[in-house]
Amino acid sequence: MVIKNPQYQQKSEHFNVIKSIHMRYSKIIGKTKKDAPKDEESVSAQLLLRGGFVHKEIAGVYTYLPLGLRVLNKIIQIVREEMIAIDGQEMSLTALQNPEVWKKSGRYDDDVVDIWFKTKFKNNTETCLAITHEEPLTNLMIQQINSYKDLPLYAFQFQTKFRNEVRSKGGLLRAREFLMKDLYSFDKTKEDHEKYYERAKQAYIKIWKRLGIGDDTYVTFASGGSFSKFSHEFQTVCKTGEDTIYLDKKKKIAVNKEVFNDEVLKMLDINKNDLEEVKAIEVGNIFPLGTKYSDALGLYYTDEEGKKKPVIMGSYGIGMGRVMATIVELKHDDKGIIWPENIAPYKVMLIGLNLEDEKVKEKAEKLYEKIISMGIEVLYDDRKEVTAGQKFADCDLLGIPYRAVISQKTENRVELKKRAEQNTKDVSPEELLYLLK
Amino acid sequence: MVIKNPQYQQKSEHFNVIKSIHMRYSKIIGKTKKDAPKDEESVSAQLLLRGGFVHKEIAGVYTYLPLGLRVLNKIIQIVREEMIAIDGQEMSLTALQNPEVWKKSGRYDDDVVDIWFKTKFKNNTETCLAITHEEPLTNLMIQQINSYKDLPLYAFQFQTKFRNEVRSKGGLLRAREFLMKDLYSFDKTKEDHEKYYERAKQAYIKIWKRLGIGDDTYVTFASGGSFSKFSHEFQTVCKTGEDTIYLDKKKKIAVNKEVFNDEVLKMLDINKNDLEEVKAIEVGNIFPLGTKYSDALGLYYTDEEGKKKPVIMGSYGIGMGRVMATIVELKHDDKGIIWPENIAPYKVMLIGLNLEDEKVKEKAEKLYEKIISMGIEVLYDDRKEVTAGQKFADCDLLGIPYRAVISQKTENRVELKKRAEQNTKDVSPEELLYLLK
Repeated sequence: MVIKNPQYQQKSEHFNVIKSIHMRYSKIIGKTKKDAPKDEESVSAQLLLRGGFVHKEIAGVYTYLPLGLRVLNKIIQIVREEMIAIDGQEMSLTALQNPEVWKKSGRYDDDVVDIWFKTKFKNNTETCLAITHEEPLTNLMIQQINSYKDLPLYAFQFQTKFRNEVRSKGGLLRAREFLMKDLYSFDKTKEDHEKYYERAKQAYIKIWKRLGIGDDTYVTFASGGSFSKFSHEFQTVCKTGEDTIYLDKKKKIAVNKEVFNDEVLKMLDINKNDLEEVKAIEVGNIFPLGTKYSDALGLYYTDEEGKKKPVIMGSYGIGMGRVMATIVELKHDDKGIIWPENIAPYKVMLIGLNLEDEKVKEKAEKLYEKIISMGIEVLYDDRKEVTAGQKFADCDLLGIPYRAVISQKTENRVELKKRAEQNTKDVSPEELLYLLK
Repeated sequence: MVIKNPQYQQKSEHFNVIKSIHMRYSKIIGKTKKDAPKDEESVSAQLLLRGGFVHKEIAGVYTYLPLGLRVLNKIIQIVREEMIAIDGQEMSLTALQNPEVWKKSGRYDDDVVDIWFKTKFKNNTETCLAITHEEPLTNLMIQQINSYKDLPLYAFQFQTKFRNEVRSKGGLLRAREFLMKDLYSFDKTKEDHEKYYERAKQAYIKIWKRLGIGDDTYVTFASGGSFSKFSHEFQTVCKTGEDTIYLDKKKKIAVNKEVFNDEVLKMLDINKNDLEEVKAIEVGNIFPLGTKYSDALGLYYTDEEGKKKPVIMGSYGIGMGRVMATIVELKHDDKGIIWPENIAPYKVMLIGLNLEDEKVKEKAEKLYEKIISMGIEVLYDDRKEVTAGQKFADCDLLGIPYRAVISQKTENRVELKKRAEQNTKDVSPEELLYLLK
């Protein structure tokens, strides 16, 4: 796996990133399959399992295979960039949790939260697996925050959450173990909090846009729980969604069925007649937490006048696997996935046909090396003993944006096709490189 | 957090990496502390806790704060590059495990493995938290490997392991929840396995060198458990280490006390008189697994002659937090940590003194922006109401490689000092940028 182009090598060293930008499909861990497990109901889980992106360990528990991890990491990077852009500091909390911290907020009680995994240390004291991280982070911030000068602070992470769901048939849409991006805000005043809440909302809107689901994703009014009248969900309209929302397409806002009433409509200045009832998937949510956790755990700051006040908090979540699955729910056809270019595992799939013909093989190998030397991410289907039909079907299932075919028929040219389009194009290797760059 | 230099921006977009390369110390989550918790025995845990790199949740369970996560991510990237270089495919297995898979190898039994965390799903079936990943990966590979043409395969991941240790006083050196890099090899024959095992060994040697502990780390013969006569550990010589090894400094090899006997010395052609007994920390290990797991779980391939054979496996581990802690055990003085430049959280700490003087403040801010525009990672101590002595002490504790001071006294110059050296140097801002670049 030597990257031959010295220019690329140099740049990559500069950023301390050596990426694996190329792969032979004959060697990949994650083969395509004809059928998905019968108990997988969602299209996204079926396609991701069939394509070799993920592997099912237990219901609701999925391993990310190399192709799936590549997509996940690209989604993570987009979300990370937008979190850094709104002053988020990245950290990483723990899965094992101290029950004492959770007892303070009341959430350790199984009657309050019924999705805990609990277990024990050797000395017989209890521990539990993080369902989220409000409590431990609030507790940690007690050491960080004393004065108004220490505020505001914004912390985020990509961390695994464990939720002991009774039913887990949603595939990656509702997993029992899943990676979440969670951001938490710590502000002095309600006004500061509201300003940041709006910044976070705008960052989320940018994220959906960059992930290719911006047009289908709506800011949605939802219940705020016990400490806030409302929160905001980001709902992606999708026939297979579990949630029901009422959508005003013109105003680009929606209301979750759970808070759908005349009072809310009036508050939002929405006319009932402009609304459409649709199914949707919640891809993210943002939540004003007020002083619920700072009061419960004792997170105070001293203000300009020496007065002790509770810190105003907010939390902002995105389930990374769920977002990936939602993109698949939206971006597929009967042949397979259609990844947006910026999160596709590879940009182009180079397919070699008739590779038993040494001349064709040589051409394909040469083009493969050239694509690599340009720094373009390429998956090379170098399999022999596999029919052209099977190779095309696999390529469609994997959803790689560009398909470049070299065969006896193409001679010194390349047959190029976009995954999302029907027609093929006859191009020279040079044109191909130019188009991909 | 806008990166102003368009050249840097362009490059970073090319690689899809927008990094947070700068930070104001007044805002950082992770303040320095005078004292570490009393129950922390190891110097590395004390310094990492005092410096605000990590936060202790429970004994043996640590949150990575922003500074700590930066160091960890740099170590991860070095290890990742070397794993990709030996054809490793990155994936990510799960924490929640299916007991049925572990029962096949016999390791689910608490009498065999006594460090399990076990818990239950809502339907009362058991699950456990991954202590390592041989069994689930072997099980997964059954779907991947049929014929000799599918081999070899090499898979690696950075994944959390959970180990329910009775005693956890080693800080990050022996945590109960920790990130591990684990690589697994799947080969056709013993010969192929041995070749790869040697490649992995060489990759490990490169890793220690790149992490700055190469000179202190020795390939060490150790017990191979029940299925192999020997394995290899990588032991870093360190007074505070838990392991005892016998070291031949000239030959650059060592023998773990647990297998230290005349037979082994003879086999390795080592003279007892050349050996030194020293304490060491095991930073990594590589293990020939033979067919233990492939036999137990049924991972076979069909060879060239149509014969069914078990796959030959190996496993190769590095505890990421332990490596980070080991570096601190080795690289510190009585003032704090001395990070090697390539894994330091930031390259330079810019310290502003007398910042109440607007002129000085302006100079410091201007230099801060310039350093950022060059793409150099910089931590700016912009705190007011903190003494020069405290700022210098914090800088030493954090272990940032370069310290650049701007004050009333420095006028239009900068006082530069390397963390590892005593003397300071008077340079112009331009010289500083040149030296750091």
